[in-house]
Amino acid sequence: MTILYNRVALIGLGLIAGSMSLAMRRAGVAGEITGYARSSETRNTAREIGLVDHVCDTALDAVKDADLVVLAVPVGAMGTVMAEIAPALKQGAVVTDVGSVKGDIFASVLPHLPEQAEFIGTHPMAGTEHSGPNSGFAELFDKRWCLIVPPEGASETEIQRLEKFWRALGSDTKRMEAEHHDLVCAVVSHTPHLIAYTMVGVADDLSRVTDQEVIEFSAAGFRDFTRIAASDPTMWRDVFLSNKDATLEILGRFTEELFALQRAIRIGDGDHLHDYFTRTRAIRRGIIEAGQDTDAPNFGRHSDAT
Amino acid sequence: MTILYNRVALIGLGLIAGSMSLAMRRAGVAGEITGYARSSETRNTAREIGLVDHVCDTALDAVKDADLVVLAVPVGAMGTVMAEIAPALKQGAVVTDVGSVKGDIFASVLPHLPEQAEFIGTHPMAGTEHSGPNSGFAELFDKRWCLIVPPEGASETEIQRLEKFWRALGSDTKRMEAEHHDLVCAVVSHTPHLIAYTMVGVADDLSRVTDQEVIEFSAAGFRDFTRIAASDPTMWRDVFLSNKDATLEILGRFTEELFALQRAIRIGDGDHLHDYFTRTRAIRRGIIEAGQDTDAPNFGRHSDAT
Repeated sequence: MTILYNRVALIGLGLIAGSMSLAMRRAGVAGEITGYARSSETRNTAREIGLVDHVCDTALDAVKDADLVVLAVPVGAMGTVMAEIAPALKQGAVVTDVGSVKGDIFASVLPHLPEQAEFIGTHPMAGTEHSGPNSGFAELFDKRWCLIVPPEGASETEIQRLEKFWRALGSDTKRMEAEHHDLVCAVVSHTPHLIAYTMVGVADDLSRVTDQEVIEFSAAGFRDFTRIAASDPTMWRDVFLSNKDATLEILGRFTEELFALQRAIRIGDGDHLHDYFTRTRAIRRGIIEAGQDTDAPNFGRHSDAT
Repeated sequence: MTILYNRVALIGLGLIAGSMSLAMRRAGVAGEITGYARSSETRNTAREIGLVDHVCDTALDAVKDADLVVLAVPVGAMGTVMAEIAPALKQGAVVTDVGSVKGDIFASVLPHLPEQAEFIGTHPMAGTEHSGPNSGFAELFDKRWCLIVPPEGASETEIQRLEKFWRALGSDTKRMEAEHHDLVCAVVSHTPHLIAYTMVGVADDLSRVTDQEVIEFSAAGFRDFTRIAASDPTMWRDVFLSNKDATLEILGRFTEELFALQRAIRIGDGDHLHDYFTRTRAIRRGIIEAGQDTDAPNFGRHSDAT
């Protein structure tokens, strides 16, 4: 593999940045990788495990001479970080982010972008419920989507180089416009997460059913909600606050449909329920046919773990 | 393994009954297994694959001389089937069901129970999104819970024999009282299913986001909902209609919490969101510690399937 960027700076050293570093090394696409995290504990851990080539003590040091700068911090911190690093960006540097929201990031980041640099948003749709500098692994992006969201007027050459970079890290790439990106993510990711968080919170809060019972019998459906409801709280707080409009729109649709089903249960309208449940089966088949999940019983979990 | 029942009759030949037959053979706990299904197509398939020892053309034939009769039909059909088979039950026969609801089944089944027979409810908490006579496998119940729900006055000897039977099929057993069973299941299973069905229905129904996009990007969270939203529509219609009170109670709690989170998003109350998301993480840890799920990234799915 040829080197695509001589120097890559990772700002933030959590699950995504850590996995990017390991995947960049696997692919051999970066000459040198620097990193910075706000917490000294994170920086120390990253140094101990050799997560990047140089852990720097300031963001300014990390981005100096970088050809690609990756903002891998919570969505709410992107604008501040951009403002901080702007003076140190070299001529022709490309800045990218890995946040789950794009409209709000454009609004907070682009005003601070200096003339000599370029910004192109990306959203690697990959993750686990784990976080921190120890949680990364080189395979995280393999066969997962990375959405490429260029602002108007971005350089086509640099967009293509960034797409090549993400494909080298294992991802499939697709370009999307920021507003559409945020709506799609509200549907496939943000609203499902909020609902999962809610259901888990409700179960935890009942006095007549113990946490012990909820945990013991979770395989009956509840468990499927808990993985995504264990995701990083800070990241998700910022996602909801910054993709407010699209999330509230989809939540509105959700409660509308839920009330209709609730009413069908109350009045005993079995046909309404049956029709609805039949329709949703087709979507599952589509997902399996598209290779986005396995058809194996029990999600392909190993039987000793279920 | 010793034989626990000389003759077992399976009424209904879907996923659960089929898996029971295969697990009974594996364990050697039944002398002979008969089966009946209302649909002739199902009976023919069961005959072709040798799912049970004798496929009968009437439920009455199947239960004749049976020591254990398993009602493995949708919850809404339990009472009718019980009334139909009652005259053919032998002295001392034990009738059980494998439904996901207990209060309503007791109400519909017990009035038809003849004096010479005994009824004890069971609820094997295992399943896949597949249904039909071809979907069973012997390992379905391994290390999964089977809740044992005896009505008042049931024979302790027969309860213990049935517990031994389910443990021979691979399950862990736990006794529970019917009303509590239905509330626990509303929390860990029924409400999560309804919510998953709703979310999948909403995603399917949006005109601005295509089904193709929903399917392609489902790994971002949405996918976790689709497995349970692909479960058998008839079974689930009956579950909701027959566990109405407990499901509506938990749904009420759910919408209350969801509205509070929705309001926090609207007014930008990040602390409320962060606190809530932090609390739900602990439940996930409990589930992993209890061995009810794997901690492996991506649910332990094989990477080629994701």
